[in-house]
Amino acid sequence: MSDLTGLFNPKSVAIIGASKSPGKIGNVIVKNMINCGYNGKILPVNPRESEIEGLQCYPSVDKIPEPAEMAVLSVPAVKSLEIAEVCGKQGLKYLVVITAGFKETGKEGLELERKLLEICRKYNMRMLGPNCVGLMDTHAPINASFAAGFPLQGEIAFISQSGAMVLSILDWSYKVGLGFSKFISLGNKADLTEADFIADASEDSNTKVILCYIEDVENGPHFLDVARRASRKKPVIILKSGTSQAGAQAASSHTGALAGSDLAYETAFQQSGVIRARNMPELFDLAVAFANQPVPQGDRVAVITNSGGPGIVATDNIEDKNLKMARFTKETVESLRNYLPAESNIYNPVDVLGDAKADRFHFALQTVLADPGVDSAVVLVCPAAVTEPVETARAMAQLKNEFPDKPLFAAMMGGARLEEGARILSESHIPCFTFPEPAITSISGMVSYSRIKNLPAKTNPLSFGDIDLKTVKATFYDVKKDNRLVLLGSEAAEVISAYGIPAAPTVLALNPDQAVAHADRLGYPVVLKIASPKILHKTDVGGVKVGLDSREKISSGFMEIMDNVHRYLPHVAVYGVEVQKMMPRGVEIIIGMTRDIQFGPLLAFGLGGIYVNLLKDVSFRLVNGLTESEINSMIAETKAYTLLRGYRGEKPADIDAVLKIMGRVARLAADFPEINEIDINPVFAYNQGASALDVKITIS
Amino acid sequence: MSDLTGLFNPKSVAIIGASKSPGKIGNVIVKNMINCGYNGKILPVNPRESEIEGLQCYPSVDKIPEPAEMAVLSVPAVKSLEIAEVCGKQGLKYLVVITAGFKETGKEGLELERKLLEICRKYNMRMLGPNCVGLMDTHAPINASFAAGFPLQGEIAFISQSGAMVLSILDWSYKVGLGFSKFISLGNKADLTEADFIADASEDSNTKVILCYIEDVENGPHFLDVARRASRKKPVIILKSGTSQAGAQAASSHTGALAGSDLAYETAFQQSGVIRARNMPELFDLAVAFANQPVPQGDRVAVITNSGGPGIVATDNIEDKNLKMARFTKETVESLRNYLPAESNIYNPVDVLGDAKADRFHFALQTVLADPGVDSAVVLVCPAAVTEPVETARAMAQLKNEFPDKPLFAAMMGGARLEEGARILSESHIPCFTFPEPAITSISGMVSYSRIKNLPAKTNPLSFGDIDLKTVKATFYDVKKDNRLVLLGSEAAEVISAYGIPAAPTVLALNPDQAVAHADRLGYPVVLKIASPKILHKTDVGGVKVGLDSREKISSGFMEIMDNVHRYLPHVAVYGVEVQKMMPRGVEIIIGMTRDIQFGPLLAFGLGGIYVNLLKDVSFRLVNGLTESEINSMIAETKAYTLLRGYRGEKPADIDAVLKIMGRVARLAADFPEINEIDINPVFAYNQGASALDVKITIS
Repeated sequence: MSDLTGLFNPKSVAIIGASKSPGKIGNVIVKNMINCGYNGKILPVNPRESEIEGLQCYPSVDKIPEPAEMAVLSVPAVKSLEIAEVCGKQGLKYLVVITAGFKETGKEGLELERKLLEICRKYNMRMLGPNCVGLMDTHAPINASFAAGFPLQGEIAFISQSGAMVLSILDWSYKVGLGFSKFISLGNKADLTEADFIADASEDSNTKVILCYIEDVENGPHFLDVARRASRKKPVIILKSGTSQAGAQAASSHTGALAGSDLAYETAFQQSGVIRARNMPELFDLAVAFANQPVPQGDRVAVITNSGGPGIVATDNIEDKNLKMARFTKETVESLRNYLPAESNIYNPVDVLGDAKADRFHFALQTVLADPGVDSAVVLVCPAAVTEPVETARAMAQLKNEFPDKPLFAAMMGGARLEEGARILSESHIPCFTFPEPAITSISGMVSYSRIKNLPAKTNPLSFGDIDLKTVKATFYDVKKDNRLVLLGSEAAEVISAYGIPAAPTVLALNPDQAVAHADRLGYPVVLKIASPKILHKTDVGGVKVGLDSREKISSGFMEIMDNVHRYLPHVAVYGVEVQKMMPRGVEIIIGMTRDIQFGPLLAFGLGGIYVNLLKDVSFRLVNGLTESEINSMIAETKAYTLLRGYRGEKPADIDAVLKIMGRVARLAADFPEINEIDINPVFAYNQGASALDVKITIS
Repeated sequence: MSDLTGLFNPKSVAIIGASKSPGKIGNVIVKNMINCGYNGKILPVNPRESEIEGLQCYPSVDKIPEPAEMAVLSVPAVKSLEIAEVCGKQGLKYLVVITAGFKETGKEGLELERKLLEICRKYNMRMLGPNCVGLMDTHAPINASFAAGFPLQGEIAFISQSGAMVLSILDWSYKVGLGFSKFISLGNKADLTEADFIADASEDSNTKVILCYIEDVENGPHFLDVARRASRKKPVIILKSGTSQAGAQAASSHTGALAGSDLAYETAFQQSGVIRARNMPELFDLAVAFANQPVPQGDRVAVITNSGGPGIVATDNIEDKNLKMARFTKETVESLRNYLPAESNIYNPVDVLGDAKADRFHFALQTVLADPGVDSAVVLVCPAAVTEPVETARAMAQLKNEFPDKPLFAAMMGGARLEEGARILSESHIPCFTFPEPAITSISGMVSYSRIKNLPAKTNPLSFGDIDLKTVKATFYDVKKDNRLVLLGSEAAEVISAYGIPAAPTVLALNPDQAVAHADRLGYPVVLKIASPKILHKTDVGGVKVGLDSREKISSGFMEIMDNVHRYLPHVAVYGVEVQKMMPRGVEIIIGMTRDIQFGPLLAFGLGGIYVNLLKDVSFRLVNGLTESEINSMIAETKAYTLLRGYRGEKPADIDAVLKIMGRVARLAADFPEINEIDINPVFAYNQGASALDVKITIS
């Protein structure tokens, strides 16, 4: 991880492609650097000018007496390589490449970008962009961008893969009075990526919240590592677009980004402690919440209102967002009962009634905030005749200081009559909305963060002592030599057995006599299954016989299977018939693995059997950084868990055995990147132990 | 259904409890009536005044020379009965009772309210309230309320069970420039309810959209009838609160409303064509959309943007909301290719690039709106350097007129730089947001309405010729005589058989010999089941024996079951053992019925068997107004449907037979209100026909 402090605090910045013409990007950048109050040297570079905006202009970057530390490039793409080379030779440390015309334009651009990156690597320069708006830091301060303005100072770092989003949010932020610590436009992310800036912002003392808009991540494992550590320090909130099928197409046509599957992103965010915003309003509502309010200790919300209806709306929403309506202590209830009018509702939501002035709001809010069973509070103000919005807002501001550990939100439900009150709230850093719902959504996001920040940042990889790598390697070697990518059932059983996973003994028989011999050894009864890498649904082609309890049945079963398969699929290569010891029935589950191109293996767990695809009761986790407690929660969030615990009087199954199989499958996937997919369906979970019945493994 | 035109257009209005003191409710009402431009006679009534706000004041309502048509009551609750009586005698037609202190305060208030309603009924007066803010109509005009103001004229009728919500929305509406046709505060709904005002607004030529905030409905079947007809004429959008467990408590503690279960409301709204808003922002976004835009012909949305990122965000959201990204015709694509710069994205979302001026937006929008494959369009504007928000907004306004049938939405993604453009859009009735998502949500609501408005308003009840009411009546009579509310399996089978539902033949045997005799008649093999109204899970107590294929097995099975049950449940009354013909296995489904106190019977359908509660694959519909096509969609929306169609090579099941059973169960529930619950689980659906295996019926 490289330290980016210097990128935001360079001693001097050369602006290559600086211009005298107002409105030109090369002019806007110079003005932005001057106007933001940057403390270092601003060095415009343009061979045709001697002075720009009152600053001496240099013909080229190597003509600057004392070499610059950073260069901002706003020159045609074709010239950028040559200029970067000169910058490298001059010992510059950072390039901010505004210039477009790279990867986003197609093949030639991609090649240009590759060469540009090569130059940066050669000279040990770090690069932001190309094809970006630039970067801003209100605390440094620096404005190395062509944005029309500079954000208000604040504590939100906004990292965006879309340059337009930077311009939009900047313009909008003035209107709503939102301040930022940093604005970073990632552009094509040829060198520096979201992960670098998340890591940097997590160490920045001026940043309280990290906000990202991304369309993909550049390096899955690196992102996970960075996000896991950053999210323990401060909230990392991400809007990831390109989640839809259609959206993913738009993403790849736009920035040439290859969007990973959304499932992997969803899982990656969840496991690394990233809070995922579902839409743009939520992204910024959460940012405001975290920037202005403490993280709540828990999920119990108190509601104060001067009207029943909005109180009910808020209550609904609290339950909807998996929060809890706080239950007050006896003392709180007593106290409310003594002070508030008799018709008030003194339970949560507290209704101080339509004729409430500020004092009643003040009293009720103070009382509930003092209650140890309340983690956060929302105040809903409707404009009744005697309502005192200004005084109510002032009371809230005061109580925010009295109870600095409990987040406080407001809905000023109206227009002009409440405007001054709303203004006071915003000034007092109490997020204020028109309707209750966004306040509740914000609290919900904060609560989910309260759980994240206490998680350990480091995870110990699952380790097992009794693993036989050699057998797996040998099996894969044989399979590849046979020009196959699909393992036979017996091979797959061998592989998982080598990783200590209990599999029903399965051996390949080439003829009826071999089958009988295997059965004699395994013990009766047995199951026969056709062995062919091409046949996925063996039952559908008459390729399975169960419960064979004599030599005669095995012999005739073998022949029947061969006949059936040849009749259904005359041209499919058949390797023989597999003999499997018939296992007693248990709870049917599926344990599997699929590999995501961005984030690596995803472990799957759920209800097994033939209805897997119909019931879709499956949970996923990335193997990267997977912990035993996460495997536990994978199990717990499925319906299969209900069966495992013993459904309708059945004995509970051995969940520990299931857990171990999952851990070993994860380890197998991590150890062998050539495994594309593992499907163990069903696993029978017994009262004691578990057994893998049918195992499919494909490699690449 | 009564005509409420007179309520909004009375020739004269007495204001009883009128006051001279500014700020008092009795004074605000008089001023509101004067200021709104009301055309009829305003008649203040107060025995202590002779003149109020320049109007002659009468000592009592019977001293008014020409009797008033309507009275607004703002007097203490205890006086209201006496005054209502006088109003009745004077022949007044309408009472608007602002006065609080009725049902919402408890038992005594409820009694007072009952008496007040009695007086209204006696004199044939209709009443709004009590405990309400009043009513407003901007077209009549009339403002018989104590709200601080009068809405801008518009085409949205807002009906609210919360008075505070009326005050909030009124104040807020000025700020956002939203106009209304009517504002109705329902109060306690002693006489006139939401249904009355929905019916009225559906006939009102000045109303285009009906908006409701409700906490419950007063009369389920009446509401369904009204909503079904109203929703075919204009959109009916409802925010129903009290959906959460906690919210329902708040609802009943607040207005004494008894909230029905949310499932019944959800189903009632869906079946009657009501659009359910999920939260307050959505409620008003939808109102603005419907008031200003035509209803789209379909779900295909075009997106025009000057930036990739927001385009992807919109695309994601379109898929999320079950809308479709429009696919352009070859002509549209060609046309875009010819005019737009080469780097533009000419497929949906159309990216006109960051350097687009208004002409490019204009051309692109015109081109896609002309495409027959586009039903609606969203334009996203980011504030790049050369962006022309004002001209772009003007171009959109012009295109709205050119394409009056295609709804058009905008997101002006920024602040001050786009403000004037946003203003022009709002003035031109193009809904404009800061972020793309609310625009998409609005389109989604409009599309769902486009499906509703073409549905028939009248539904023919499902009718069957071969129904034997008598047998059912006789069975229920016997069961009640036996002091039971739970039918035995054999009785339940008899009941459904009487309704033409094929049930596996089931007869009660009191001893082993009877069981054998029954089996001889039914045919072998048979199933034996313990018969006891107290035993719900027969298998769990050893009360079931299947596949008995001989007299001996039946005799011993009978005794074993009795032994088992006596051992497990020594004190439970046992009626004998039921003998059921053993049916071949089919696709296991459940068909059931549960009765909602507000909306009557709910029909249920889903995956059957012992995992019903675990898998929760069940769909519901109200029996009220149920059509065959709705039963079809009930089936289609479950996973059970996949099984019925033939899963993994199985033969398809007889869906028509299933459909008929569902229709007959619905009919049975409608015919016998004493049936509380029906549970047929499983029904075996065969390739031909279906059979009910286990039937549970409880009555009240």
